[in-house]
Amino acid sequence: MSVLDRFSFNHATAKFWDQREAVEACARTGSKIGLWREPVQEFGLEATAKLVKDAGVAVTSLCRGGFFTDPTPAAIEDNRRAIDEAAALGAPALVLVSGPIPEGGTIDSAREGVKEALARLAPYAGERGVTLAIEPLHPMFASDRCVVATLGEALDLAAPFPAEQVGVVVDTYHIWWDPQVWDGIARAAAEGRIASFQLADWITPLPAGVLTGRGQLGEGCIDLKRYQETVDAAGFTGPIEVELFNDTLWARPGQEVFDETRAAFARALA
Amino acid sequence: MSVLDRFSFNHATAKFWDQREAVEACARTGSKIGLWREPVQEFGLEATAKLVKDAGVAVTSLCRGGFFTDPTPAAIEDNRRAIDEAAALGAPALVLVSGPIPEGGTIDSAREGVKEALARLAPYAGERGVTLAIEPLHPMFASDRCVVATLGEALDLAAPFPAEQVGVVVDTYHIWWDPQVWDGIARAAAEGRIASFQLADWITPLPAGVLTGRGQLGEGCIDLKRYQETVDAAGFTGPIEVELFNDTLWARPGQEVFDETRAAFARALA
Repeated sequence: MSVLDRFSFNHATAKFWDQREAVEACARTGSKIGLWREPVQEFGLEATAKLVKDAGVAVTSLCRGGFFTDPTPAAIEDNRRAIDEAAALGAPALVLVSGPIPEGGTIDSAREGVKEALARLAPYAGERGVTLAIEPLHPMFASDRCVVATLGEALDLAAPFPAEQVGVVVDTYHIWWDPQVWDGIARAAAEGRIASFQLADWITPLPAGVLTGRGQLGEGCIDLKRYQETVDAAGFTGPIEVELFNDTLWARPGQEVFDETRAAFARALA
Repeated sequence: MSVLDRFSFNHATAKFWDQREAVEACARTGSKIGLWREPVQEFGLEATAKLVKDAGVAVTSLCRGGFFTDPTPAAIEDNRRAIDEAAALGAPALVLVSGPIPEGGTIDSAREGVKEALARLAPYAGERGVTLAIEPLHPMFASDRCVVATLGEALDLAAPFPAEQVGVVVDTYHIWWDPQVWDGIARAAAEGRIASFQLADWITPLPAGVLTGRGQLGEGCIDLKRYQETVDAAGFTGPIEVELFNDTLWARPGQEVFDETRAAFARALA
């Protein structure tokens, strides 16, 4: 089995590319796909489910749920819908970006909100065959996007739940700087919690707002091959998704970005 | 004793303010000062030492040494000079920003370079009454500025050396997102390693390049009072420095920034 057989193209890497074309490109190359809720809704949930099924393209994750640091009924209800959507698409994992510090709160109180939301969502997800995948985001997003900032923290949040209900995302872009990252990956694998494995490279300078600065594989400083080897050695054999938020990539034709990304993936993990 | 008696104004908060005026403002208000090597060199090392001594202003730290992830003879020699300068100024701590990932290296190899550099500098610093203060920087700086990214990592790096030789910087801006931060502060205090305690607030959006986005105290999301209480409860009674890298502050008159910062400090820790 070639590592390319594990390649999954996250649609956000070519954010403005037509979803049908993205799925067809995956089908032509034997690739898998990571989907996003907004384009899925635009295309239609059932239509997307039929599209990927007819094309024989595996959906590796749906992005994203979360934003439940203030676990209001509306936030919980939206996440239940996201779980239903993941189930309808055959996506084994719903990626969770936990959300910001609510007005008047602290990062500690926001983390309590995440615990509460998980408790309310985990059984619902498990019953539908969807694993909630807690994604630690890089700490530069800790106030306004995701209060879960390390792999260790994500694993601690997942710990009270069965692994088929709650897992974690191992995304190199967000965790590469962490001196405890290798231990964290070993722990995640031992606990069966790796619900999604994603690659992106770290490049500087960061753009204003820092959201769209993810580097093409091989263009930054992350030892991506070591991540794959570590995850593999720990027993993970699942898909490897590439998700790049990058304005320069987004401005280019989707097919070109797809081809370049697939080639960069093969080189980085050769 | 009022908390204002512990206020130290880091010169970088009003980066372009004349050093003499900054020292005089501190003298008038019973404040302490954190100095930077470049303005000290411009003013003259001996002249600066005389300036602060005559004004009766305590120097709480000198910024900065470090940038020794590739511990070349030149890097070590420059750090020895920085230690000498700190000693001449009566600064008890030399703040160390460890440096970037060297060309062709990884973050792990860079961290080995830091260990080596510390081993070569620690006794030299101790003999001169200067504590090397390892500053963990926010992980968004981990590739191009400082490979030491958490308080726990800084403490692990300091562990082989006597506390009077090597300590750490507790800077709220860099560590506030860390789920292990409270344990880290307790450990730092228990080991007598808090060589510098600095405050800055976290605000978003971050500017391009992310270096100059530090918020005035009280304008961001960090529970600064809790940090002071935690550090105090752990037995730290030293100065509390305010160091803000912020383009908007840097564009304003130094005296105005000094007055505003001192007032914000009093409010934040009231």
